[in-house]
Amino acid sequence: NPIPNMAQVRNKQVILRDYVSGFPKESDMNVVDSTIILNLPQGSNDVVLLKNLYLSCDPYLRIFMAKDTIAGLGGLTPGSPLTGLGVSKVVESGHPDYKKDDLVWGITNWEEYSLVPAAQILFKIEHTDVPLSYYTGILGMPGMTAYAGFFEVGSPKKGENVFVSAASGAVGQLVGQFAKLHGCYVVGSAGSKEKVDLLKNKFGYDEAFNYKEEPDLNAALKRYFPEGIDIYFENVGGKTLDAVLLNMKLHGRIPVCGMISQYNLTQPEGVTNLAHIIYKRIRMEGFAVFEYYHLYTKFLEFMLPLIREGKVVYVEDIAEGLENGPAALVGLFSGQNVGKQVVVVAHE
Amino acid sequence: NPIPNMAQVRNKQVILRDYVSGFPKESDMNVVDSTIILNLPQGSNDVVLLKNLYLSCDPYLRIFMAKDTIAGLGGLTPGSPLTGLGVSKVVESGHPDYKKDDLVWGITNWEEYSLVPAAQILFKIEHTDVPLSYYTGILGMPGMTAYAGFFEVGSPKKGENVFVSAASGAVGQLVGQFAKLHGCYVVGSAGSKEKVDLLKNKFGYDEAFNYKEEPDLNAALKRYFPEGIDIYFENVGGKTLDAVLLNMKLHGRIPVCGMISQYNLTQPEGVTNLAHIIYKRIRMEGFAVFEYYHLYTKFLEFMLPLIREGKVVYVEDIAEGLENGPAALVGLFSGQNVGKQVVVVAHE
Ligand SMILES: NC(=O)c1ccc[n+]([C@@H]2O[C@H](COP(=O)([O-])OP(=O)(O)OC[C@H]3O[C@@H](n4cnc5c(N)ncnc54)[C@H](OP(=O)(O)O)[C@@H]3O)[C@@H](O)[C@H]2O)c1
Ligand SMILES: NC(=O)c1ccc[n+]([C@@H]2O[C@H](COP(=O)([O-])OP(=O)(O)OC[C@H]3O[C@@H](n4cnc5c(N)ncnc54)[C@H](OP(=O)(O)O)[C@@H]3O)[C@@H](O)[C@H]2O)c1
Repeated sequence: NPIPNMAQVRNKQVILRDYVSGFPKESDMNVVDSTIILNLPQGSNDVVLLKNLYLSCDPYLRIFMAKDTIAGLGGLTPGSPLTGLGVSKVVESGHPDYKKDDLVWGITNWEEYSLVPAAQILFKIEHTDVPLSYYTGILGMPGMTAYAGFFEVGSPKKGENVFVSAASGAVGQLVGQFAKLHGCYVVGSAGSKEKVDLLKNKFGYDEAFNYKEEPDLNAALKRYFPEGIDIYFENVGGKTLDAVLLNMKLHGRIPVCGMISQYNLTQPEGVTNLAHIIYKRIRMEGFAVFEYYHLYTKFLEFMLPLIREGKVVYVEDIAEGLENGPAALVGLFSGQNVGKQVVVVAHE
Repeated sequence: NPIPNMAQVRNKQVILRDYVSGFPKESDMNVVDSTIILNLPQGSNDVVLLKNLYLSCDPYLRIFMAKDTIAGLGGLTPGSPLTGLGVSKVVESGHPDYKKDDLVWGITNWEEYSLVPAAQILFKIEHTDVPLSYYTGILGMPGMTAYAGFFEVGSPKKGENVFVSAASGAVGQLVGQFAKLHGCYVVGSAGSKEKVDLLKNKFGYDEAFNYKEEPDLNAALKRYFPEGIDIYFENVGGKTLDAVLLNMKLHGRIPVCGMISQYNLTQPEGVTNLAHIIYKRIRMEGFAVFEYYHLYTKFLEFMLPLIREGKVVYVEDIAEGLENGPAALVGLFSGQNVGKQVVVVAHE
């Protein structure tokens, strides 16, 4: 009893082979050819069939690859495709809010076509005069992260001194630009000369340095912040955080966005200078972007004009093809990516 | 040209011998007999002559005894008397706000009589139906610390789970009682069986344990907080903080009051579980009591009735005589004190 327009097509997938410990490797993933029927199964409600266009490489995926995901954040399943954020086109919809050809961004699978609960879609894409891939970055989760972390958690004031680690990344490049727009002095650290140049010449950071070439991070920070740091936008943790604590100003704030330097360590590094939280009355605050998604419309109203007028720029690092997904993802942890790491599954 | 009522009297003093590194010892201080003329020097304005009654032994004094006081918090001077909080009676005043026989609390010296700028006085004592020594503790700086740290920084909600370290101390015993008054579940840790008994039987803690007898602090916290900790009132830092981070609940708060376990270490301990600040979206916030002194009147209105009605109790550890000051102060760092450590210089 075949359904008339039923079409079985190839569905390339990136599968997690096994739980990861230590640094992730390409070989922790398999790229396989599977198949999928390009129709919603009969009677399926609240489900959408997506054609995936752009997948987002995000550091948090490493946390989800661990066997015991810390804090029960939910995890990836060995033998199944990776799950992550992406931009997709609706092929068929069983949910009234979505229809064929809608563009959406949300949680999908690392494969060509995905059948997902409609609840996994986060937002419908309404503005397409900007690159669609931007919805994995500047107009997507990392953009919202920079916005919420800097403005909402950081409580910046004009003239304050801001330090950003992983400063050229998906989130960091925006934090620096937001800080400049807000009238702050901003310094970034990154892991290569190329990135340092980008920070200074493209993203408008006042100063930037390559943390890998600084034998003494404390001294480097003293050089760039003789009067101390008001806001440290924390992306990396570990040694950087320890040096920052020594250089915070009174009533400084540390929005804790991420600690990528710790995600692959079996035994995390010890941070020794926490007593400065008292001495300088520092507020250190972890946040999760998804708790700020209610601000997304406001965020778009802020962001879109800035993009259109060229007042904020965005650098992406594009990997072509799902088969290059594992290398792109793994590369985040050695700083291979220059800017937001995107994997193109299909250009529409 | 002698002034008629000029009277030179003995002025016993506790002198800092030299800067301290490592654990402080009694021999870091000298008790000496000096003399003082019990009149204001002619023409001295804005100065008061105080007879010191009760001196407060506070952990922060250790920080001020170091050569390079961290964060430039101001320090003590070798060869001079210690400076700290105390309750005093005005002998003579060159400042219009104070007059002979006024009772005050504020910053004075570890000696029998002190000539200090009036600006060092923090508050005039208006309520004397309670023990005067209380103004070094429950009605003084430690009381304000517990109040501001718990209510203002901790943002407690009824029914929340609260953990307090150094729980039987000057600050901790009040935090526990405030938490109970506020409808929270509260557990405290302290360093002896006697203190654990006090916590449970006198201060109304729901549970308490001796951290020195817990080989695995993480396991201990899991036992008392199967659902996790909403508020950790941080007094000690180090290993305790590390175990707490593993047991915090989502959106938990850590008012950072102090880290006494770190004050005497040349190389502070490393805290390894900071990534939980992201996973659980924790707010960790250092505070200094003196930034909340504007709430002192409100605090007294809250506190005095509770004391008078016996709804809050306070345990003091009283050392008689300045000559016992050094031992009392040093004892804080090995937990010799049971409750608020006070040194009596004179009973009025
Ligand atoms: N809280 C949230 O809701 C939220 C949301 C999104 C992202 N995040 C976090 O934000 C941070 C940045 O994410 P992103 O998407 O913008 O990633 P990204 O910066 O685009 O890529 C990761 C970068 O981190 C740097 N890095 C890798 N290992 C490092 C190490 N051991 N020490 C220092 N730097 C290292 C590398 O740059 P270098 O060449 O400069 O080393 C790498 O390019 C991550 O910690 C992530 O987990 C949090
Ligand atoms: N932020 C502020 O404005 C402010 C104001 C006042 C106080 N504080 C801080 O609050 C904390 C408590 O002060 P307090 O006046 O109430 O002192 P306290 O608790 O009356 O006395 C100090 C107690 O700390 C405990 N202790 C000492 N060394 C320790 C170690 N290595 N590990 C664990 N516990 C240790 C001892 O109790 P055990 O027998 O239980 O070990 C000792 O009795 C201190 O950290 C202090 O610096 C901060």
